[in-house]
Amino acid sequence: MAPHVTTIDSSALKDCKPYYSPVATVQGPVKFIYTAGQVGRDKNGVVPESYEQEVELAFQNLGDALLAAGATAADIVKVTYYIVNYSPENRYHAQVLLKFMNGHRPPSTLVPVPALAVPEYHFEIEAVAAVRDLTAIPPIVRPAALGSLSVDVVVVGGGLSGLQTAYDVQKAGYSCVVLEARDRVGGKTWSRPTEGGSTVDVGAAWINDSNQSKMFALTKKFNLELIEQNTNGNCAAHVPEKESITFRYGEVPAWGEKDVADIVRIRDGFEELCHTIDIQNPWAAGNDDVTLEEFVKQQGAGVKALATVGIWSRAMLGCEPSELSALYFLDYCKSGGGLLQMRSDQKNGGQHLRLRTGTQSFSKKIAETMVPGSVILEAPVSRIFQSRSGVAIVTTEDGTRYHAKKVVVSIPTPTYKQITFQPPLPLDKLKYSSNSKLGYYAKMILIWDKPWWRKDGYCGMTQSFVGPASVTRDTSDDLEGQFSLTCFLVGQPGRDWSKLSAAGRKEAILSQLVALFGSGNETDIRAPTEIFEQEWVKDPWSQGCPCPVTPPNIMSDVGKALREPFDAIHFVGTETSFEWKGYMEGAIRSGERGAAEVVQAFSSKSAKVIAKL
Amino acid sequence: MAPHVTTIDSSALKDCKPYYSPVATVQGPVKFIYTAGQVGRDKNGVVPESYEQEVELAFQNLGDALLAAGATAADIVKVTYYIVNYSPENRYHAQVLLKFMNGHRPPSTLVPVPALAVPEYHFEIEAVAAVRDLTAIPPIVRPAALGSLSVDVVVVGGGLSGLQTAYDVQKAGYSCVVLEARDRVGGKTWSRPTEGGSTVDVGAAWINDSNQSKMFALTKKFNLELIEQNTNGNCAAHVPEKESITFRYGEVPAWGEKDVADIVRIRDGFEELCHTIDIQNPWAAGNDDVTLEEFVKQQGAGVKALATVGIWSRAMLGCEPSELSALYFLDYCKSGGGLLQMRSDQKNGGQHLRLRTGTQSFSKKIAETMVPGSVILEAPVSRIFQSRSGVAIVTTEDGTRYHAKKVVVSIPTPTYKQITFQPPLPLDKLKYSSNSKLGYYAKMILIWDKPWWRKDGYCGMTQSFVGPASVTRDTSDDLEGQFSLTCFLVGQPGRDWSKLSAAGRKEAILSQLVALFGSGNETDIRAPTEIFEQEWVKDPWSQGCPCPVTPPNIMSDVGKALREPFDAIHFVGTETSFEWKGYMEGAIRSGERGAAEVVQAFSSKSAKVIAKL
Repeated sequence: MAPHVTTIDSSALKDCKPYYSPVATVQGPVKFIYTAGQVGRDKNGVVPESYEQEVELAFQNLGDALLAAGATAADIVKVTYYIVNYSPENRYHAQVLLKFMNGHRPPSTLVPVPALAVPEYHFEIEAVAAVRDLTAIPPIVRPAALGSLSVDVVVVGGGLSGLQTAYDVQKAGYSCVVLEARDRVGGKTWSRPTEGGSTVDVGAAWINDSNQSKMFALTKKFNLELIEQNTNGNCAAHVPEKESITFRYGEVPAWGEKDVADIVRIRDGFEELCHTIDIQNPWAAGNDDVTLEEFVKQQGAGVKALATVGIWSRAMLGCEPSELSALYFLDYCKSGGGLLQMRSDQKNGGQHLRLRTGTQSFSKKIAETMVPGSVILEAPVSRIFQSRSGVAIVTTEDGTRYHAKKVVVSIPTPTYKQITFQPPLPLDKLKYSSNSKLGYYAKMILIWDKPWWRKDGYCGMTQSFVGPASVTRDTSDDLEGQFSLTCFLVGQPGRDWSKLSAAGRKEAILSQLVALFGSGNETDIRAPTEIFEQEWVKDPWSQGCPCPVTPPNIMSDVGKALREPFDAIHFVGTETSFEWKGYMEGAIRSGERGAAEVVQAFSSKSAKVIAKL
Repeated sequence: MAPHVTTIDSSALKDCKPYYSPVATVQGPVKFIYTAGQVGRDKNGVVPESYEQEVELAFQNLGDALLAAGATAADIVKVTYYIVNYSPENRYHAQVLLKFMNGHRPPSTLVPVPALAVPEYHFEIEAVAAVRDLTAIPPIVRPAALGSLSVDVVVVGGGLSGLQTAYDVQKAGYSCVVLEARDRVGGKTWSRPTEGGSTVDVGAAWINDSNQSKMFALTKKFNLELIEQNTNGNCAAHVPEKESITFRYGEVPAWGEKDVADIVRIRDGFEELCHTIDIQNPWAAGNDDVTLEEFVKQQGAGVKALATVGIWSRAMLGCEPSELSALYFLDYCKSGGGLLQMRSDQKNGGQHLRLRTGTQSFSKKIAETMVPGSVILEAPVSRIFQSRSGVAIVTTEDGTRYHAKKVVVSIPTPTYKQITFQPPLPLDKLKYSSNSKLGYYAKMILIWDKPWWRKDGYCGMTQSFVGPASVTRDTSDDLEGQFSLTCFLVGQPGRDWSKLSAAGRKEAILSQLVALFGSGNETDIRAPTEIFEQEWVKDPWSQGCPCPVTPPNIMSDVGKALREPFDAIHFVGTETSFEWKGYMEGAIRSGERGAAEVVQAFSSKSAKVIAKL
């Protein structure tokens, strides 16, 4: 239940638990939301065959209508059902309601009706809801240099996790500012305009519409257009012995029969093992005393299987297998639903859907819905002081001070050292932070005026055991006439490539593409119309991408310290998420957790105050 | 769609254009409006025979219910229909809905029902709406003398047009004050209490319920009681040769057969000619190079026809036919739907309905619904300064300054010279202003304890070719036991009368009434219980009534300058209206135009700012 919506039970009335409450109130500066009656029909107007599916779809549509207005089931104030041929014996809607409301019990009215708008409809539901109206709150005026401002919460970092924290905190009724070092929001998401008027993502690029429920909900909330990742066609593998091996998407390149069996054995072993990990308590699983490389060697992996694991750790984390703990990698895979799912470009996979306007839209849209002026750009934090009385003072580089009851740090764990914490961070957290490290992760996006690779049946997905790019993907926006391949320069091959001159870097990629796709395409390959290059390691505020990793023995030693608050300071960021670490989904989930921690602390504190009165 | 109501479409749901949206939000300080279910029954409870008429009437009733709460269709957040024997084949309500909503698409629910409250009803509609709650906005505190206040808009003049401008500007979300020189709102409407507890209008007095749609809507919005003008009975004409001629309302006094034919010819000629005028571009019609008198003489009018035209121009504008351009008069007639309609006291006419509480109620009610403190009385404006950067500073006589982005001047055009404009007004506007002039217009209202004129079959309407009063009307409020005749002292006979002593002015009117209604009524006539006198020319803020006129050659030369903005300054007032100039209807319409100009300028400016980001 949202803080501005209160349901009330009355001892004078018959108990209506667990389904509804007799009455509810709404108060504070709220935005009211009225839905049209929602029936069980899909986007194309099709009504499911069974009554049960119809009811479920109507609730789902109600959820989508609310979401489009920035609300969820918890914000509902009142619902009304209209049911054709209602029989008290069939109360299927009640169980769907219980699941939909998830403990919230808004007042409801059931109206049996002789018919609905068309004979195919048997169930309709409408709702009134309310969310906190953040625009009704006076805008925050950024203090001048050396000035100060008092708020309930300061969030350090305006990436997805920080913005989600701040949005939730404001929605719960507390004042909050976000201090962002860069001149833009979005952190490791950064969408840049092309000359042709489309958008490319030089940072995080993919979501999915199933197990990444938070991201999919945001696309619906903000009405963002999705592009499905193309996996129809052949992939190309770049191997040392011969130039290129063509293989079907989802298969293992035919790199010699014995080697393929070895690769499949190692892969399936990883898949099985990672699912045994308890994401809340991963250190119990062991394997933190070895690097990923050592672990794979212990499995008796051949050279090609080891090289394949190298592709994974580079593409997934920008690291060589020798640079991270085996447990870290296994836990990372588990957080995304397993190695195969995390690496998949298809339904449920980690690289399934892109956004036409780019993924930075998420951050921009969240920032737009916040209290005006509350996202402060170009405000790098230099110091976080916590007084004995529990007040925190956050100082930015220009000497401006922000007084707060809570601070939420939403920057990559390895960059904590850029901030002077006073008193200093606890030793365990310091150890975790100073031992975690972001991989080398760069993208080169080449745009052409036609998708030349498709005519040979390629989907644009490649992997390379030679380099410099370890993998590539088709990142075209066909509707916008933007045809591109994104090349991932990751791990050691990326670092080596990075040392070349600008011309050398470009030439290295073009040559590699010729090797992968054949000299028949060379003329096309060598005629890109625009190139974007982004080396995340050179961005001082990210220091790499997508997610910091730990070497052996850190997780099992001080892993618990990662998301532990330090008095008034809380910590979020995609690496602190239990699910989809390193992904936007993980960032949003961690932001929600951070906000919940802070709001929970405030409400138990005020409960204590009330109790004392 | 009102700025605080937002309808949202969702790509996750089936498209429901053009009828409704799946969800709508309301935000900001709003007043919520809930209607009862509205059915198709008229005021007397009669339900039309056809289903179609019933649906249309239900929508009309919904419109009236919303209006009574200060809302329109554009403010609707949600509608619910209840339809008896609903069949998807008969969706007549949908086409009525489209017309009623005029592009707005609030969420809706259609509920087929077995019956409604009584068997005669087949269709019912209810709505939730929201309008900006101006009382929820912090009151404006008038700055002390020499102090200053910043607002978005300053309106100069608290008559109907200025108040309507300010109300609309505030409703659109911008801060606005009205600076009024007098100690009251209403401008040329002024309703004064009688000793007997009723009200008389010493200024504008009549509206109608058909083509004066804005005024009629305001009576419904504010629930004001109407009194129909009495036209049942005889009229009396006061002519030089004999004392009084009795004639039926609507006829021409039987002033000699040939003369009547001449008067009818001239009248019908005016009626025909005025309808040829394009109100947006009247100068194209010619006849601006002659006075009304010259024009009538050119038509070969006899003495009595000329005298009749004199009654018109006096009663309608307080002017002699020699004082105004023929085109001005023709255009003025056209603005009120023609000479006959403008002069009519019956349905559709200019003098059809009075208000029990007086017409100043309109201004008082509008002011009451505005942001508290935003109508500042006794604040005559002395200076309007416009800086190069686009800021305007309005200074009142006590030296208080009001900083604004826009200024709306709502005072009679000839009184612009009372304000120092810096930089000065553009030459064309200055020329228009200094050449336009308000006529002599006074009312003497005599109240008696009985309507003595009615027993002889008189309706109280008279016209006089002798003077001092050119016309009279029965302005009784029978329910309140207030029986009165209002005498119009207008044009030259009015000016002459004005020079008499107070006793002489009263005697002149009483004698004239005896001449008109016969010496048999003399005892009654000479026993008024109360007399009100108002000479508008002596009011420095109006300088006359009802509407400034122009002599020949001004309209065709600089007429376009009348309503042209001057940088940040906009101009309203009844004389700037295309329809019902000189009437309250024209004032309200001009006020709406002024507000629309200002709001449009603000929103295109903010659109530009957003585009720059």
